[in-house]
Amino acid sequence: MATVKLWTDAEVESNPRAKAIFDDIRVVRKSDFVNNFWRALANQSELLERTWASIKQVMFTPSTLDPLTKELIYIAVSTANGCSYCVHSHTAAARAKGMTDTQYAEFLAIAGMASETNALANAMQIPVDTEFMVSS
Amino acid sequence: MATVKLWTDAEVESNPRAKAIFDDIRVVRKSDFVNNFWRALANQSELLERTWASIKQVMFTPSTLDPLTKELIYIAVSTANGCSYCVHSHTAAARAKGMTDTQYAEFLAIAGMASETNALANAMQIPVDTEFMVSS
Amino acid sequence: MATVKLWTDAEVESNPRAKAIFDDIRVVRKSDFVNNFWRALANQSELLERTWASIKQVMFTPSTLDPLTKELIYIAVSTANGCSYCVHSHTAAARAKGMTDTQYAEFLAIAGMASETNALANAMQIPVDTEFMVSS
Amino acid sequence: MATVKLWTDAEVESNPRAKAIFDDIRVVRKSDFVNNFWRALANQSELLERTWASIKQVMFTPSTLDPLTKELIYIAVSTANGCSYCVHSHTAAARAKGMTDTQYAEFLAIAGMASETNALANAMQIPVDTEFMVSS
Amino acid sequence: MATVKLWTDAEVESNPRAKAIFDDIRVVRKSDFVNNFWRALANQSELLERTWASIKQVMFTPSTLDPLTKELIYIAVSTANGCSYCVHSHTAAARAKGMTDTQYAEFLAIAGMASETNALANAMQIPVDTEFMVSS
Amino acid sequence: MATVKLWTDAEVESNPRAKAIFDDIRVVRKSDFVNNFWRALANQSELLERTWASIKQVMFTPSTLDPLTKELIYIAVSTANGCSYCVHSHTAAARAKGMTDTQYAEFLAIAGMASETNALANAMQIPVDTEFMVSS
Repeated sequence: MATVKLWTDAEVESNPRAKAIFDDIRVVRKSDFVNNFWRALANQSELLERTWASIKQVMFTPSTLDPLTKELIYIAVSTANGCSYCVHSHTAAARAKGMTDTQYAEFLAIAGMASETNALANAMQIPVDTEFMVSS
Repeated sequence: MATVKLWTDAEVESNPRAKAIFDDIRVVRKSDFVNNFWRALANQSELLERTWASIKQVMFTPSTLDPLTKELIYIAVSTANGCSYCVHSHTAAARAKGMTDTQYAEFLAIAGMASETNALANAMQIPVDTEFMVSS
Repeated sequence: MATVKLWTDAEVESNPRAKAIFDDIRVVRKSDFVNNFWRALANQSELLERTWASIKQVMFTPSTLDPLTKELIYIAVSTANGCSYCVHSHTAAARAKGMTDTQYAEFLAIAGMASETNALANAMQIPVDTEFMVSS
Repeated sequence: MATVKLWTDAEVESNPRAKAIFDDIRVVRKSDFVNNFWRALANQSELLERTWASIKQVMFTPSTLDPLTKELIYIAVSTANGCSYCVHSHTAAARAKGMTDTQYAEFLAIAGMASETNALANAMQIPVDTEFMVSS
Repeated sequence: MATVKLWTDAEVESNPRAKAIFDDIRVVRKSDFVNNFWRALANQSELLERTWASIKQVMFTPSTLDPLTKELIYIAVSTANGCSYCVHSHTAAARAKGMTDTQYAEFLAIAGMASETNALANAMQIPVDTEFMVSS
Repeated sequence: MATVKLWTDAEVESNPRAKAIFDDIRVVRKSDFVNNFWRALANQSELLERTWASIKQVMFTPSTLDPLTKELIYIAVSTANGCSYCVHSHTAAARAKGMTDTQYAEFLAIAGMASETNALANAMQIPVDTEFMVSS
């Protein structure tokens, strides 16, 4: 159902810029599996390169937040934005990084609760307490 | 600019159901400060009670996810939903629970990156890889 | 803070197309008050005319849904879309059409609950039951 | 395509907490049909119990808003949040509670119109009229 | 998976108001193809007529913005709103109006970038510079 | 009302990484004005550098889409995402790049129309026509 062609591995062989990124994805993620997101981006080399460079920096370099926490933040944003693809791919990634059923249940409860209070605060247009402001 | 009255502490004195919840909020959060969200909900006792019961369960009972991770998930959802009030209150809560500037910078990078790839996946309507599906 | 000029009544006097719409708004709504939404649209006559024609048709002609129900649907959409202006204006309209504090509390509870279950269904990517489908 | 297992009736037999909720759902909704939303939540007992308790309270206890109006508000929020599952399930529920084709057509017109004016107000960043504010 | 019946050409023959609109769609778009959006709206004549009248005015009358730019704006809104149907139909329309692969890649980069900075600005709740305000 | 400090020019003098980016912003945009978005990002050097590099690439390098079209896409996304800051800054940028009042009126009409049909398509869950799919 995509609006673009999804590049197979065979087709990527003839696309050097995409090939280089696919190779790096496999090395960095330590897996031969390259998911459809990258196969779709292979249509636009510059965007593929810049998006992977950012993902690699944000999600795969050592950081103070641990890898699972980072995936949970990613799923939270994707859920609220209604991105079916991203919810699927990052929930799978969270599981691969050790997310337990209990942690997932806790995540769901928070995501649901946040959405509910977001709606309440937006519906009542509650003014921000001055205690919460850092600068004005 | 709220669409409802915000109850002061003096007014809550004459509202026993709200008073009981405000008291419990102060005990559970170990702080005398009760923010505007609860002062707005004081107009509807049943909703105030049910919302606080859920928040207390989801955010303040021992869990496998640590308190800061839970706040980061909350801010992520609130950011994507565009809830100004909730972003302010939970960013302040995250800081109170020890979020460092480095952690916040990492959080922002993930929230921004997720939003970007959400847009790309939604724009290209990328089909979900079968590898990501648990049931159909 | 608008990105456009807001037309005062004096200025509208020199803008015949806007003047005609403002006059009709006052007649249909039985009130001299014309809110900022229309004062902003006065910059683009065609859009002002088409928007008012649609609002008049949808919100002010006799229908099987009663006027308060229509406003509640309007606030629900505006809340989920995070439109501060629309939440304010249609909550005021709902009150003008008789919304009680109890009805508003019930509305808030539904809007909050729906947002919570939306997040849960989107997070778990729950497949639609075939029982719910009318056509495929 | 779910990210979680959907529990069949046979499997729920071995899950007492889920079984108790499924039984109550059948009693309260006066129907043997339990839709996928609950079969997904059966993976996390606490969330299943709390979500059903809230839905039962908000949607199935006597209220000043009638049952159809409540479903229309639910569909409105779900539409704006882009929750395919929730739109399907609550549109079916609205029909089961008597929504006519004419009422549905009126609902669609309001949801569409609200979304349009939400976009216009957000694009022009129209300041809220002081007449609409209850507190500041 | 629709919540409504999709009208076939044969069925539309017995629905004069829908038939008149379908005829006009074919004339204005210079194509015999009528997509599902209109087949769904055929259930509600008034909404079908008003929606087509607006689309015809906004998208098919001569304007200072060229036809491709208009489609790109349409896809941008649809992407951010997570409307799968609209993303598909307007991306196809953009291609029919001459969108090249390079232009599409540029569009995707902007839509992704805007979503990222939207999240950053919303997360940090950055105050609007006075230089950007036209009126207050 | 920000959740972070906004760096003044004087403070940026003692922050070499931010200083280098601010200098480049001034050169590339040919203006001494640096808006609050960048003053907020100055708190996190890596994110500031990566965000500016992307914006510079996407918005300021020669492309097949003209500068005004790019700003209109940016405003469209920002409007749908409810990002007040971004709507303000990019509407100002569009005006600086020559957007006329007529073009802005046309933009608003499209953004409003798209939002309306997004809601209709999402509410009726209209299945995508096979004619619109590029791959599956």
